[in-house]
Amino acid sequence: MRPYKELSKEELVLLKEELEKKFEEEKSKGLKLDMSRGKQTTSQLDMTMSIMDVLDSDSVLKTEDGLDCRNYGLMDGIPEAKKLLGDIMGVPAENVLVYGNSSLSIMYDAVSHSVTHGVMGSTPWCKLDQVKFLCPVPGYDRHFKVTEYFGIEMIPIPMTPAGPDMDLVEEYVNNDPTVKGIWCVPKYSNPQGISYSDETVRRFANLKPAAEDFRIYWDNAYAVHHLYEDKQDEILEILSECEKAGNPDLVFEFCSTSKISFAGGGIAGMASSVANLKSIREGMTVRTIGYDKVNQLRHVKYFKDLNGVLAHMKRHAEILRPKFEAVLDVLDREIDGLGIADWTRPVGGYFISFDAMEGCAKEIVAKCKEAGVVLTGAGATYPYGKDPKDSNIRIAPTFPTPEEMAAATDLFVLCVKLVSVKKLLGEMSE
Amino acid sequence: MRPYKELSKEELVLLKEELEKKFEEEKSKGLKLDMSRGKQTTSQLDMTMSIMDVLDSDSVLKTEDGLDCRNYGLMDGIPEAKKLLGDIMGVPAENVLVYGNSSLSIMYDAVSHSVTHGVMGSTPWCKLDQVKFLCPVPGYDRHFKVTEYFGIEMIPIPMTPAGPDMDLVEEYVNNDPTVKGIWCVPKYSNPQGISYSDETVRRFANLKPAAEDFRIYWDNAYAVHHLYEDKQDEILEILSECEKAGNPDLVFEFCSTSKISFAGGGIAGMASSVANLKSIREGMTVRTIGYDKVNQLRHVKYFKDLNGVLAHMKRHAEILRPKFEAVLDVLDREIDGLGIADWTRPVGGYFISFDAMEGCAKEIVAKCKEAGVVLTGAGATYPYGKDPKDSNIRIAPTFPTPEEMAAATDLFVLCVKLVSVKKLLGEMSE
Repeated sequence: MRPYKELSKEELVLLKEELEKKFEEEKSKGLKLDMSRGKQTTSQLDMTMSIMDVLDSDSVLKTEDGLDCRNYGLMDGIPEAKKLLGDIMGVPAENVLVYGNSSLSIMYDAVSHSVTHGVMGSTPWCKLDQVKFLCPVPGYDRHFKVTEYFGIEMIPIPMTPAGPDMDLVEEYVNNDPTVKGIWCVPKYSNPQGISYSDETVRRFANLKPAAEDFRIYWDNAYAVHHLYEDKQDEILEILSECEKAGNPDLVFEFCSTSKISFAGGGIAGMASSVANLKSIREGMTVRTIGYDKVNQLRHVKYFKDLNGVLAHMKRHAEILRPKFEAVLDVLDREIDGLGIADWTRPVGGYFISFDAMEGCAKEIVAKCKEAGVVLTGAGATYPYGKDPKDSNIRIAPTFPTPEEMAAATDLFVLCVKLVSVKKLLGEMSE
Repeated sequence: MRPYKELSKEELVLLKEELEKKFEEEKSKGLKLDMSRGKQTTSQLDMTMSIMDVLDSDSVLKTEDGLDCRNYGLMDGIPEAKKLLGDIMGVPAENVLVYGNSSLSIMYDAVSHSVTHGVMGSTPWCKLDQVKFLCPVPGYDRHFKVTEYFGIEMIPIPMTPAGPDMDLVEEYVNNDPTVKGIWCVPKYSNPQGISYSDETVRRFANLKPAAEDFRIYWDNAYAVHHLYEDKQDEILEILSECEKAGNPDLVFEFCSTSKISFAGGGIAGMASSVANLKSIREGMTVRTIGYDKVNQLRHVKYFKDLNGVLAHMKRHAEILRPKFEAVLDVLDREIDGLGIADWTRPVGGYFISFDAMEGCAKEIVAKCKEAGVVLTGAGATYPYGKDPKDSNIRIAPTFPTPEEMAAATDLFVLCVKLVSVKKLLGEMSE
């Protein structure tokens, strides 16, 4: 395929006409597909249904220590659920708290609590003139919404294939005392599917923050979400790296079973140093007498241990892999070599990140919508919803079937081509 | 029985010796009983076990609208759970949000959100020099802990048999713009078991707050927690009273199934005006994609409707009634007429409130502890844990058996007598 930039104006005009014709044809098909959100598909959820059978009215709803899960108490989680989530994150149970069903809520609460009460006794952020967070981009829109909601200034940090640009991270964190946090999805990042290199993790662990209340918000959302048996990313365990670096309190880590068991009925947890957890428990004891321990027990009985989780996730991978491959096949076949886009090839996680030519993302998303394919809003992967290059689009292939994903991607590449051609013609006439 | 105050010094001295001897005897029995917290007893929890059977792997985990409860979405609760909690509170489903498992968490979040973001667009409380809450006393310690944690100044408001002293409430709320809230347990109040009279509810609904962001924090924790078939309190429904009074946005109401199904696995909700809920959802959407909808569905399938809840609570009452009566029998028999104490005779809820002679509560609780009976800390029913009269003690009869409760109360009255006698002797020698 010849790169579009090598085409003459006449060739581009002809191509544009051809693509527009095709687009109208596609549009008339009345597609109705959604590749906007990273959510489990029905067959994944069906696969987990036997979790509904592990507890019944004959079950003894007690922890291994004999505590009644049905009653008040055990505020920060049952010991066996701490161990299970700890094993998923690679940290000891004593470093884990188990909350409700959503890691997003835990992150929100961590930020909200810092705003009202500071971090381990520091000045509450609401008393400060300026609070900043570093935001690796492209990143997860819901992270950015949390910081935006609290009026925290967000500074974009470019991602590299090894993780965030650590030169820039170090420069900010080690020198600017108003920088209080950084959002990280360290493994199979949202949306690029990048896993941080060992060097990146070590550089994180060795930060020397100017602010005592700076924390790394380490959203380990895809810790066990591999797509392949033979290609799996692993990252260094951050808590122990921080400990080694003499920075034991540097990290708040989060995880959940939303994409392991049920998004609408899972469990979520947080890992941190014993000192951080002590401080967090002081707020927690005001907020709750305890989360849903019956559901914690249900998860432990169902998965049993990390091996149970990994076996389960292998079956998830079998469902998800063909969807990712369907998207990548179409992208490879249709636009590789045209010089109008780049995309990632993740071996885990829930997303593919797509970079169109500058200034094209919004129009591509609009075109897709016009023809019945919903994508995550362009810009969503950047703080304040503003992608300065208007280039990044997040593709979420998990929910539709492989066939639907192929159809949706066919339409998507058509829109990418059409918008790119128009863009190039526009540049010529300028 | 002759009132202690009519006894001569010599009689009191003799009585004291006798009581001290008895106390040492009791102490040597090595009792180990806890009447400190309002929690369900094991037989209540056992009674609910079939809730574990209503959903299994053959169930269709969908809402009545066909939405998959297992996946993301329906942030503010499934429609049928809104209806169920709404029926418990006596409000339409459209006025209800369903959260996680704990109404305390919802209350905490409501206060926390007001601190960081204000109420329906008002100035965030963290930007204000002074924020005050009215606290009917005696009241619920965990309410007071929430406001204390956020540095909110608490003003005690005496309770009357009809609810809080409304003259005082009106004086504060209608004139002082720094008063932003009042904690209420309107039905079978904690700890007195008082239900607000219709006049009290109407006066609440007709408040003319000086602060636009004043709200009544209406913790309807014991809405269906009657002890008797033939003696049941009912209160006016506050949301509609507020609506009638032209104050539709005045109330945040809270409830949960912690003392209906399982404290460690229930559901909780909030009711308010449509305008309040709209504002609350704006924060909620930043915090979560949705709570545990599977457990919401489980509760709806188990209870079916309000009648199901009421039938269930009748069986709870059969378990709890003998415990309350065991306490009251001992109190009546042992100290009625001695002029050293007053106590409430609730027909619902989870507590009995006991008022000792001034300056005696702490020592009574300490004495009980010395002999193996744990009571809620004296003072806990007051803001900052400070009962100015050192008189009120909360008795929680629900967890131990009726026999244990009788034994614990026997010890309790012994301690009450002993401490009272010592107090009277001390006054004589002053």
